[in-house]
Amino acid sequence: MTQAAAPVQAKAQTAGESIYALVRELYPICRSITGDGVRETLKRVGAHIALKVHEVPTGTQVFDWTVPKEWNIRGAYVKDPSGAKVIDFSKSNLHVLNYSTPFRGKMTLAELRPHLYSLPEHPDWIPYKTSYYQERWGFCLSHRQLERLSDGSYEVVVDSSLEPGHLSYGECFIPGALPDEVLISCHVCHPSICNDNLSGIALCTFLAKHLQGRRLRYSYRFVFVPGTIGAITWLARNEAAAGRVKHGLVVANVGDSGKMHYKKSRRGDAEIDRAVIHVLKNSRRAHEIIDFSPYGYDERQYCSPGFNLAMGSLTRTPWGRYPEYHTSADDLSLVRPEHLGDSLNTYLAVVNVLENNKTYVNQNPKCEPQLGKRGLYRQMGGHSESKEIELAMLWVLNQSDGSRSLLDIAERAKLGFERIAEAAAMLAGVGLIRER
Amino acid sequence: MTQAAAPVQAKAQTAGESIYALVRELYPICRSITGDGVRETLKRVGAHIALKVHEVPTGTQVFDWTVPKEWNIRGAYVKDPSGAKVIDFSKSNLHVLNYSTPFRGKMTLAELRPHLYSLPEHPDWIPYKTSYYQERWGFCLSHRQLERLSDGSYEVVVDSSLEPGHLSYGECFIPGALPDEVLISCHVCHPSICNDNLSGIALCTFLAKHLQGRRLRYSYRFVFVPGTIGAITWLARNEAAAGRVKHGLVVANVGDSGKMHYKKSRRGDAEIDRAVIHVLKNSRRAHEIIDFSPYGYDERQYCSPGFNLAMGSLTRTPWGRYPEYHTSADDLSLVRPEHLGDSLNTYLAVVNVLENNKTYVNQNPKCEPQLGKRGLYRQMGGHSESKEIELAMLWVLNQSDGSRSLLDIAERAKLGFERIAEAAAMLAGVGLIRER
Amino acid sequence: MTQAAAPVQAKAQTAGESIYALVRELYPICRSITGDGVRETLKRVGAHIALKVHEVPTGTQVFDWTVPKEWNIRGAYVKDPSGAKVIDFSKSNLHVLNYSTPFRGKMTLAELRPHLYSLPEHPDWIPYKTSYYQERWGFCLSHRQLERLSDGSYEVVVDSSLEPGHLSYGECFIPGALPDEVLISCHVCHPSICNDNLSGIALCTFLAKHLQGRRLRYSYRFVFVPGTIGAITWLARNEAAAGRVKHGLVVANVGDSGKMHYKKSRRGDAEIDRAVIHVLKNSRRAHEIIDFSPYGYDERQYCSPGFNLAMGSLTRTPWGRYPEYHTSADDLSLVRPEHLGDSLNTYLAVVNVLENNKTYVNQNPKCEPQLGKRGLYRQMGGHSESKEIELAMLWVLNQSDGSRSLLDIAERAKLGFERIAEAAAMLAGVGLIRER
Repeated sequence: MTQAAAPVQAKAQTAGESIYALVRELYPICRSITGDGVRETLKRVGAHIALKVHEVPTGTQVFDWTVPKEWNIRGAYVKDPSGAKVIDFSKSNLHVLNYSTPFRGKMTLAELRPHLYSLPEHPDWIPYKTSYYQERWGFCLSHRQLERLSDGSYEVVVDSSLEPGHLSYGECFIPGALPDEVLISCHVCHPSICNDNLSGIALCTFLAKHLQGRRLRYSYRFVFVPGTIGAITWLARNEAAAGRVKHGLVVANVGDSGKMHYKKSRRGDAEIDRAVIHVLKNSRRAHEIIDFSPYGYDERQYCSPGFNLAMGSLTRTPWGRYPEYHTSADDLSLVRPEHLGDSLNTYLAVVNVLENNKTYVNQNPKCEPQLGKRGLYRQMGGHSESKEIELAMLWVLNQSDGSRSLLDIAERAKLGFERIAEAAAMLAGVGLIRER
Repeated sequence: MTQAAAPVQAKAQTAGESIYALVRELYPICRSITGDGVRETLKRVGAHIALKVHEVPTGTQVFDWTVPKEWNIRGAYVKDPSGAKVIDFSKSNLHVLNYSTPFRGKMTLAELRPHLYSLPEHPDWIPYKTSYYQERWGFCLSHRQLERLSDGSYEVVVDSSLEPGHLSYGECFIPGALPDEVLISCHVCHPSICNDNLSGIALCTFLAKHLQGRRLRYSYRFVFVPGTIGAITWLARNEAAAGRVKHGLVVANVGDSGKMHYKKSRRGDAEIDRAVIHVLKNSRRAHEIIDFSPYGYDERQYCSPGFNLAMGSLTRTPWGRYPEYHTSADDLSLVRPEHLGDSLNTYLAVVNVLENNKTYVNQNPKCEPQLGKRGLYRQMGGHSESKEIELAMLWVLNQSDGSRSLLDIAERAKLGFERIAEAAAMLAGVGLIRER
Repeated sequence: MTQAAAPVQAKAQTAGESIYALVRELYPICRSITGDGVRETLKRVGAHIALKVHEVPTGTQVFDWTVPKEWNIRGAYVKDPSGAKVIDFSKSNLHVLNYSTPFRGKMTLAELRPHLYSLPEHPDWIPYKTSYYQERWGFCLSHRQLERLSDGSYEVVVDSSLEPGHLSYGECFIPGALPDEVLISCHVCHPSICNDNLSGIALCTFLAKHLQGRRLRYSYRFVFVPGTIGAITWLARNEAAAGRVKHGLVVANVGDSGKMHYKKSRRGDAEIDRAVIHVLKNSRRAHEIIDFSPYGYDERQYCSPGFNLAMGSLTRTPWGRYPEYHTSADDLSLVRPEHLGDSLNTYLAVVNVLENNKTYVNQNPKCEPQLGKRGLYRQMGGHSESKEIELAMLWVLNQSDGSRSLLDIAERAKLGFERIAEAAAMLAGVGLIRER
């Protein structure tokens, strides 16, 4: 292992517990694309890593979009004819249609009905709904709750505010030897939903924590942004930084029990795509590679044609593919420490490839060098057995003509990147190869 | 749908009946590579479309070939020893070896026998045989007829002429906005044979009729030529027009009940190849793609290395792959109106792709534009459901960086071309994309 | 067939017997990477072909390596406590660890034991072991022999010498019309082992014999070199010749009953790779194509990045994949005349492709030429039957635009190279195509 790689090792179990603890801590907070819930979330993330919080005023033009009014909510409920609170924001922040305008009034069930959202196919779950760009109010509730409502007069209170304010996002920059950046992005706008995306927020926090203070080749930038408008805002304010992004990943849904999925960047064959696919393939565990599509999380923005960043999305079960997605059932029981730890380790393995994927030049390119006299080879002749590390050395020597990176070589040799990197380190140690 | 696409819709049933009626009308005529049969055929085609007929004199040098003498036939028969007409041209023009030289004489069965052709494996069918470039005479007959012939003296009459004259072909040019041409070619040299190629002649006629008078992007040129020598003659006389051919198709065997087959151009990945393959794949019906080979119909000439036109051949069952091929059993019962109509619709779908396969540039390439404020998007947030047209819009926006046509995008998005073209029209309508 | 191709036909049976006779003749000689065994081997090869023997002094620097001391052996044995010779070099030269240093002494079985090598999994076979670069002595014996040894005092004699001398290799150069060379290499360092590599030595001898005195397009260079150090020595002394190598093959394991295997060059798509793969595919017999890896025989040196020669390795069963590999069981019964003859014929078929794989330009590129008037085509029209040679002519005409070789055309046409070459010869004969 080369020098940069060693520090990024993590212990899945311990790390998973820490990540899970942060998920649990952030769970009760009501987040949205703006407002105090995001601020509180960023503050708690900032307790672990050096996070800079940015506040962008309502009305700021960000490309084709405008930063919206800031939304905050103190409480909301619906009282039935008997005066009982049949829907109550204090029990679950999913009960309020996210970005509901303030409202107070009395109405019949028939008048209330168009403002209510439920999931008949999952009658015990509360759906998660939003209305960021059309001003309205509403409540989400389980279908069983909905069916129990009887006729009569209902009292409705949405104690929210939607006023000029700010959009908040957080940024953690970890400098490396190169100005080239690795951008890691997660969305912070969902309220009490664990896999999507407290798992991503918490994994990013601990990934950054692992990298902070290390000797790194690349600079790493973690952004904690509200979905869509937050990513657009960051890009609009950071075009220069975007130009330095060499690799990137969008982090979400990293805590469930499903296998890893990788959605490729728009480029499809970027180094980040090849690095992640190599790591997943060499994990020898089930995984799935998905082609890019302009639908999903903030890769939609990072991979828009004017940026076309080399960013994919590495998740466990992708959005929309698990039944609990965007419901109250995406809770603390859906994500588990061991999955969070495993996801972190997968990210660290990808970082390890990026950090060490250098291109070398064989300093003795005509015929093989005599490895034996340098103590790198068995002394006894005969072909019948071979050790993988010797084979890896021969591959590195044979392919290092300055046109192939270690990842190229690992793929051609059908050996794990770590083995190839180890062989390269040995050869570089005796001067047989040099970095291009 | 963009403006050019709409007019080319056809109603398969009605269109199929019209095409079939023309097949039936042309069926009795005895065609060859020259002569009055071709003229009569072109005259009847000319009743439907603006067809210019060209007459090229015998002896004209066309590349490596020479326009042959003109062949005409008035009648032909063989009388058996009892004086009965056992083979008679007036019953089927297939009975005469096409291009038979004039002959009158008496001979024994043994002398006659080398001039007779039958199909032992299909004893009731008359084969179709020709001898264009070696002067001889002969008769084709069913194997049962042949077996019934007894010894004795036979009277043979071939009342034909083979004299200096002309080679005739027809051409219908439909101008479009661009000088670039789409060349549609069919062979008109076969006598009473329906699928090969009255089906092609009739389909071309009605395809031209559909396009005539429409507002078109490309100019369309339909050529009705005798096989091989006719295509060579057209190319020799129209090298400039050949240079303007951007896409093209050779039309044959479009009336039988088999699935569609597409034989790719010599280039193999020309836009016409990709357009036809896309249409066939998106038909969600059985079809077959065949690699180019220098054997078959007039694509042999159009795809010769000195021209290398982007022309494939779109057929139902290809030549030689159905038992009735080149026999009297390729008759009015083998081709059906519904298949002819279906073939026409497939051709029209290809034309629709060619007409609309433009390349656009996203005018708002940095991040997604806000579709909602333009009325192009659902107002309600939440990922769990999506409509195909919105997805198509996102694909067009994401991929329209000036390097990809709508067909490129449809293929990458795995969506039908029509859906992508529809999305592009909506986006162009609000100025979010512009044609490159 | 073109002129150069005809002479290289061989009769497998006769040729196989001759090759086998040479294997049998060379079998008793004790070879190593240096010494008189190699000299004797080259002398006997030189009785068949014009072989020049080179002697390179010990201590000569060859790239990263140094030519070692020369090793020779007169005898060696181990006597057991009773005075019986329980291991005796005169019974099999495999009994001595190849490159054993001289030694005389008495010792207990316990002291002797670390110097003994056997194969428990094949208790009747003597393993083949070497120690070129670490000075030591040892004996190889069957596991049954080993198990029979009882305690007591053993007398050990290794009557060898390891002293400054030379490394010997042989070279046979057969000039052709072009300075471009085809390099055929085999290793000559293994003692009494038949498939690896007396089969290769003998096949190279008879392949050279077949080519000697022929009119050839390419120049052919056969090198008979000790493995690794010999190839490195040849490359170090012949960098200019290496620069002329256009195609090459490493020959080994060509006498066993296994199917043919081809290990591709480092380039992977060189003409030699395509030629061999075409020949194997068109043999319609089982075969296997193996990707390049920097492990195996002397392709390791020829394909090192500083040379990157277009050299693959064409064998029957590759090294290490048959149980007798590197043991006394790789003897005269493992290789058979018929396999040797078949291997020779495969090599000759590859040579035939290389010799005739020219690129032509169609002299009549616009439309097909009229083959009939040149006597190259059936006179009778009608598509239903076609002869392969006519199809081959059409392919050659269609594809010969100066950018495609006959091998390119054969692959696209899915026809055998010989058929395509035959068609090209016919077309060239009437001036329809000319060599580029």
